[in-house]
Amino acid sequence: MKQVHVNTNDHSYTVYLDNGLRFETGKWLQKCLEQPVSSILVITDSTVGPLYLKDVLSGLSGFEQVHTVTIPSGEQSKSFAEYERLITEALTCGLDRKSVIIALGGGVVGDIAGFVAASYMRGIRFVQMPTTLLAHDSSVGGKVAINHALGKNMVGAFHQPEVVLYDTAMLGSLSTQEWRSGFAEVLKHGLILNRPFYEWLQTSIKSFDSIDNDLMAELLSQSIAIKAKVVSEDEQEHGVRALLNLGHTLGHAIESVSGYGRITHGEAVVIGIVFAMRLSEQLYDTHLDIPSFIAWVKSFGYETEIPNELSRQELLLAMKKDKKTEAGMIRMILLKEIGVACVEKVETDIIFSLLKEN
Amino acid sequence: MKQVHVNTNDHSYTVYLDNGLRFETGKWLQKCLEQPVSSILVITDSTVGPLYLKDVLSGLSGFEQVHTVTIPSGEQSKSFAEYERLITEALTCGLDRKSVIIALGGGVVGDIAGFVAASYMRGIRFVQMPTTLLAHDSSVGGKVAINHALGKNMVGAFHQPEVVLYDTAMLGSLSTQEWRSGFAEVLKHGLILNRPFYEWLQTSIKSFDSIDNDLMAELLSQSIAIKAKVVSEDEQEHGVRALLNLGHTLGHAIESVSGYGRITHGEAVVIGIVFAMRLSEQLYDTHLDIPSFIAWVKSFGYETEIPNELSRQELLLAMKKDKKTEAGMIRMILLKEIGVACVEKVETDIIFSLLKEN
Repeated sequence: MKQVHVNTNDHSYTVYLDNGLRFETGKWLQKCLEQPVSSILVITDSTVGPLYLKDVLSGLSGFEQVHTVTIPSGEQSKSFAEYERLITEALTCGLDRKSVIIALGGGVVGDIAGFVAASYMRGIRFVQMPTTLLAHDSSVGGKVAINHALGKNMVGAFHQPEVVLYDTAMLGSLSTQEWRSGFAEVLKHGLILNRPFYEWLQTSIKSFDSIDNDLMAELLSQSIAIKAKVVSEDEQEHGVRALLNLGHTLGHAIESVSGYGRITHGEAVVIGIVFAMRLSEQLYDTHLDIPSFIAWVKSFGYETEIPNELSRQELLLAMKKDKKTEAGMIRMILLKEIGVACVEKVETDIIFSLLKEN
Repeated sequence: MKQVHVNTNDHSYTVYLDNGLRFETGKWLQKCLEQPVSSILVITDSTVGPLYLKDVLSGLSGFEQVHTVTIPSGEQSKSFAEYERLITEALTCGLDRKSVIIALGGGVVGDIAGFVAASYMRGIRFVQMPTTLLAHDSSVGGKVAINHALGKNMVGAFHQPEVVLYDTAMLGSLSTQEWRSGFAEVLKHGLILNRPFYEWLQTSIKSFDSIDNDLMAELLSQSIAIKAKVVSEDEQEHGVRALLNLGHTLGHAIESVSGYGRITHGEAVVIGIVFAMRLSEQLYDTHLDIPSFIAWVKSFGYETEIPNELSRQELLLAMKKDKKTEAGMIRMILLKEIGVACVEKVETDIIFSLLKEN
C-alpha cells in the first residue's frame, strides 16, 4: 500500500492509497483516531452515494451511531444554504464534539463537509475519502470552504483531516471530464515545483484510458507528496503555498463569470495556466515552449483559450476578487521556468491587454 | 492604563483598558498590528453605532479604506442570514487578506464579527472594541460563533483578536439589564477559580450605580486576568476551560427555549449557577451557602428561579444539545466549594428531577 505523510504545525496525518479501502473504513478509523468516536456522519453526494455509500457503511458496522446525508452533486452545493442544511442535519443527528464527519466524494464534498466539520461546535474531526482525481489535491492541506456569488471559496477555514483514505478503485467510475478536472492539478504540481515529475507525466500519460491501477497510485502519491511538502512548509498560505494557485486566478474568474458548474475547475485552471505562461514569457526572459504544452493538453480534450463569450471586463473584476489581491493589485503566479514558480504583482493594464488578446 | 496579556498557543495579544481609547483606535492599530493594513471594516450594531461609531472613525482618519456596517442590536443578529450578509458586505467592500475587521459592540457583535473574520478568506485579522461589561468575557479567548435554531453558538471557530481596546467610558451608557448580563460572568469567574476575588466582589460591589471608573477598571482587569489564565492553559477547551461554562448548560437552554433575546445571557446564567449550586450540594458533601448568594444577586435584580412557563422537558432536551454532552450524557460544571469547580457527568434523571422541583 502506498502512503504519504502530511505534516502541519498542529497536526500530522497520513494519506493511504489502495484498492478496496472503502470496505475497511471502520478498521482504519480505529487505527488512526486517537480519541473515541461517539458518532459518525457520512456526507456524500447524489453521484457518489449510489455507487459507494453502501460499501463504506458495511465497513462501519462496528460503530453504533452512523448517520448519512446526501447533497446534490456539483459545485452549486458549496452554498450557504447547503452549509446551513448540513449543520442542521448534524444537530438533528445529535453530533457532539467526539463525533467524526466523513467526506465521501470529490472536491465539492470535501470542501463543504470539511467546513461543516471545521465550524460545527467550533470544530470536530473529519476524515476524507476522495472519489475523484481532483480531490487528491483538496484532501491535502486542510483548505475547506464554500462559495459566495461574488467569489469562489470566499468563506472557509484551515482544518486538517485526521486521515485520508484513498480507495483507487473508486476512480474507475470517473468520466473523461472528471479526469480532466483532476489532472490539471497534477500537471500543475510538476509545472510549479518539480520538472522531473512534469517530464515523467509528459512521457508516461498519453491518454486517460491507459492509466492502470499501478500508474494511478504512482501518479497520485507523487502529486500528493509535492502538495504535502508545500503545505508542511506553509500551512497558512503566507508564502510558498501561494504557488499552488498557478492558473487559479484566471481559472476561478472563468468559473465565476461563466457560472459555477458550467466549466469544471480543472478545465478552467488549464486555461489559466496557459494565460500565466504567456504572461510569464511577456514579463520574464524565459521560453516555456507553450505550443508543446498546448498540444499535449489538447490531446486530452482540454480547451486552452478563454471562451469568447466571457466579458474580459467581468473576468478582470473577478480576478481582482482573488484572495491574493492586495490593495487592489492582482498577484499572479508565474513561471520563471518549468518547475520554478513565483508570485508577481502585475499591473491591471497588462493583464487586461492580455485578456483582450486571447 | 491597565493591561492584561493573553497568551494562546499560536498567538499573544493584549487587552488595554482606559478611558477614551476609542478616539485613538488608529494609533493602537499601528502600535499593535505587525503587518500593514490594506482596509478596515468596522462592524457595529444599531445601539452602539449612533453612540460611538463617529468617535472611532475619527480615530481612524489615518487609514484610507475604512468601511462600516451596522447590524440590528440583539442576540437575533447572530444568525446565518446576518452572517451571510456580513460576508457579502466584506466582499463588496473589497476586503482582502491584509484587511482588519473591528468589532465595535457587545458580545453579539464580537461573536458574529469574529466568526466573519475567522472564516472570510479562511481567516483575516480582527480587533475587539467591547462596549459592554459582558463583552469583557467574550473578548478573551477567541471563541466566536453564531446561533442555530437548535442551539446557541453551535457554529463558530477559535479566532484570537490582534488586540482588545476597552474604552471603559463606553460602559457609561449601559442599562441595568446589561450590567446584570455582564456581571454574571464576573462573579462566575470568582466562583469557579478565585475565592478571594469572589469575596472581594461581595464586599465591594453593592450596587451597579456605585461603580466608578477606578473600581470598574479593577473589576474588569481582575476578571479578564482569570479568564486569560484559563484560556492560556486550554485554548481549545479540552480541559480546564470547560469550567467557564458554570451556569451555562441550563443558561443556554433557558435562552433557547424562551427564544433568544427574551432573557439576557447573564440573567439566564445566574439561574443556571443557582441550579448548578443546588446540584453540587445534592451530589457532593459541600455547603455553598446558596441563600446568601441568592440574596446578594437578588439585590441587583437577578431572577434566581427557572421561569414557570418554560417546559422542563424542553429544557432538558436543550441541555442535551450542549457542546459538552458526550454520547448523550450531560456534563455539568459543579462546585466542590466556592472557588473550586469541576466537570461532572450527571444522569439525566437527576437533572430532570431537579428541573421539575425548581
